[in-house]
Amino acid sequence: MQIKGAERGTNSCFKPTDSARARMVGQRAAILLKSAPDGKAYLLHLAARLTHRGVRPSMRGHLAKPLHYMQDIRATVASEFEQVNQLIIDQLRSDVPMVENVGHYIVDAGGKRLRPLLALLTAAALGECSTDHIKFAAVVEFIHTATLLHDDVVDISSLRRGRPTANAEFGNAPSVLVGDFLYTRAFQLMVQLANMAILENMADTTNTIAEGEVLQLVRAGQTATTEAQYLDVITRKTAILFAAGCRGAAVLSGAEPALCDAMHRFGLNLGIAFQIVDDVLDYEGDPATMGKNVGDDLTEGKLTLPLIHAMRVGSPAEQALIRDAIAARSTAGIKDILAAVQRCGAIGYSREQARHYHDLALAELERLGDSPARTALRRITHLSINRDH
Amino acid sequence: MQIKGAERGTNSCFKPTDSARARMVGQRAAILLKSAPDGKAYLLHLAARLTHRGVRPSMRGHLAKPLHYMQDIRATVASEFEQVNQLIIDQLRSDVPMVENVGHYIVDAGGKRLRPLLALLTAAALGECSTDHIKFAAVVEFIHTATLLHDDVVDISSLRRGRPTANAEFGNAPSVLVGDFLYTRAFQLMVQLANMAILENMADTTNTIAEGEVLQLVRAGQTATTEAQYLDVITRKTAILFAAGCRGAAVLSGAEPALCDAMHRFGLNLGIAFQIVDDVLDYEGDPATMGKNVGDDLTEGKLTLPLIHAMRVGSPAEQALIRDAIAARSTAGIKDILAAVQRCGAIGYSREQARHYHDLALAELERLGDSPARTALRRITHLSINRDH
Repeated sequence: MQIKGAERGTNSCFKPTDSARARMVGQRAAILLKSAPDGKAYLLHLAARLTHRGVRPSMRGHLAKPLHYMQDIRATVASEFEQVNQLIIDQLRSDVPMVENVGHYIVDAGGKRLRPLLALLTAAALGECSTDHIKFAAVVEFIHTATLLHDDVVDISSLRRGRPTANAEFGNAPSVLVGDFLYTRAFQLMVQLANMAILENMADTTNTIAEGEVLQLVRAGQTATTEAQYLDVITRKTAILFAAGCRGAAVLSGAEPALCDAMHRFGLNLGIAFQIVDDVLDYEGDPATMGKNVGDDLTEGKLTLPLIHAMRVGSPAEQALIRDAIAARSTAGIKDILAAVQRCGAIGYSREQARHYHDLALAELERLGDSPARTALRRITHLSINRDH
Repeated sequence: MQIKGAERGTNSCFKPTDSARARMVGQRAAILLKSAPDGKAYLLHLAARLTHRGVRPSMRGHLAKPLHYMQDIRATVASEFEQVNQLIIDQLRSDVPMVENVGHYIVDAGGKRLRPLLALLTAAALGECSTDHIKFAAVVEFIHTATLLHDDVVDISSLRRGRPTANAEFGNAPSVLVGDFLYTRAFQLMVQLANMAILENMADTTNTIAEGEVLQLVRAGQTATTEAQYLDVITRKTAILFAAGCRGAAVLSGAEPALCDAMHRFGLNLGIAFQIVDDVLDYEGDPATMGKNVGDDLTEGKLTLPLIHAMRVGSPAEQALIRDAIAARSTAGIKDILAAVQRCGAIGYSREQARHYHDLALAELERLGDSPARTALRRITHLSINRDH
């Protein structure tokens, strides 16, 4: 499924580049340390953590490539996209400088704004983007960022090796609290929409996400995790917010219920495809460094589709290898595990599954009339599985 | 301000007793470990932590005392109070067993339900408790419990000594995620009220609480913290939810705006008095053990009113003592610090401030017609400053 050449490079838009991120970290840190010296240790820690999380090893080598492909997609709703970015900055305002600074830091370092983009394109495909659509798109990004922050605490909390424990602990506090600030600010913005159907759907969505996080926690270390259980977790953790972003935009456009449901299914299937590929990419890329994310998964006892498939079709020896690594939360056997995953065709199988959900997502778009926005939604769906980071 | 004898004992209703808590921990743990073996380590850790937080050293010696006084207060809205408890249990339902179990554990161990009680009594004082009031009271308790869970992660994260780091880290994950579950479940319940004014007020309230938590974090270790800054933090962290509970109940009763504002001020002033006394109690009680909570505050670099006053009026030597302990996050000089706080009259001063806000709260109740519910609200206000734990 890997795509080559120019198009390959264009996918680096899916994450900011190392150098761009480094610049952001530097500039932001300077502002932060000036305005909130108390926060110095927190913020440097957050910087380190976001940089760690935000940049995949597989990105190296594609950093200078142009972003035309994604820029073309954004061009369809360029001014609205800019308004969302501006609103996000405005809405980070707080009379507690630390909140504002950390909030800015997180959002600025955040990257691609894929979820708000989906909401804006859905609105454009159904008519036009209203100021309510702009607000709603910012809401979705705030909720996404809040879940990242809390997920980060959870990942850190379950790490047994890797980052210095003191730092990890030190960094938990602002991650939890700024996450709460973003969550609640999102609900403040939602109230401005005065749309009870959207409030209900977003309350349900955020509750489902929290359940999904706990579910992943409980499943940690369970090598008997099935593909169905994996799909349940990524649906709750990732896909449901894609779905809510598309449904909410359709609701605000006054689309009929059947069409709102179709856009919900589009987002849901796109989100599942997106997450499967995210998990597959941990097993690909630059061989010298690709073990990094897999190593984190092993130390967290987290099984994603490639490992689940390897546990299903791998040789008894390969299954034992994975079982022992998960049980010991150890990366000792990582080279053999990566080899086993490659050997048993787990990558190909996982990409087939991602393609299946990609196809389901595309099918839903057939209900929309032809428009540049629908074309952009198709291209995002294509990108979700045809990317290398 | 200490009150003696029978009435003194009655105040143990403000927290479950050691033995009651031990029973709850045992029963709950049994159910939990049976239904969610994966959660064993998390839950035992949560049990230890909740027990640690929930029971003040000063409680020992009052454990077997009767609860008549608080029971009299609850009697005014006995059946509604029971309905709230039932609704809380019903609303913890989740198809993720771990969520349901941890949720139950937290809520069952939670204790006094003071905030929902204030909402119910406000409703009763203004007419009658509707089913919407019952729902709203449960919402307030869920939000309170969620903030406790997240606050707990933050406290843990800033501890430098005390609990084993591995445990502390291990316990962070379910605290954050179940806190998110309770937060979002509260918003799901609120949506059922279909009252935009309440949704707006609760979104603002939870956002203010998050800001307050960050503010406390930023202020940690600052011995220059002023009384005004302390009041700002406890208003955001504690009092604002008391205020929102009373205002929301008044809004649901269809009270005129001026009366809703009055009930907001009642809750706000009551909450400030309640928190000041909470902080004062850390410096009182059984001398053999009273240093425990103060020790935690010192290791967290947290200054409460008694210390702030001591920094203001204490001798240069006493100020240096506190400054050094906070800077070093050390409990080494705790005996001298407790002595300094006693000597410079910080306890008496702090209790005077609590009394001031207690008086402001009582004054707002004059706007209500006479009723058993108003009498109960007065008695809660009285209890808030006349308790020993």
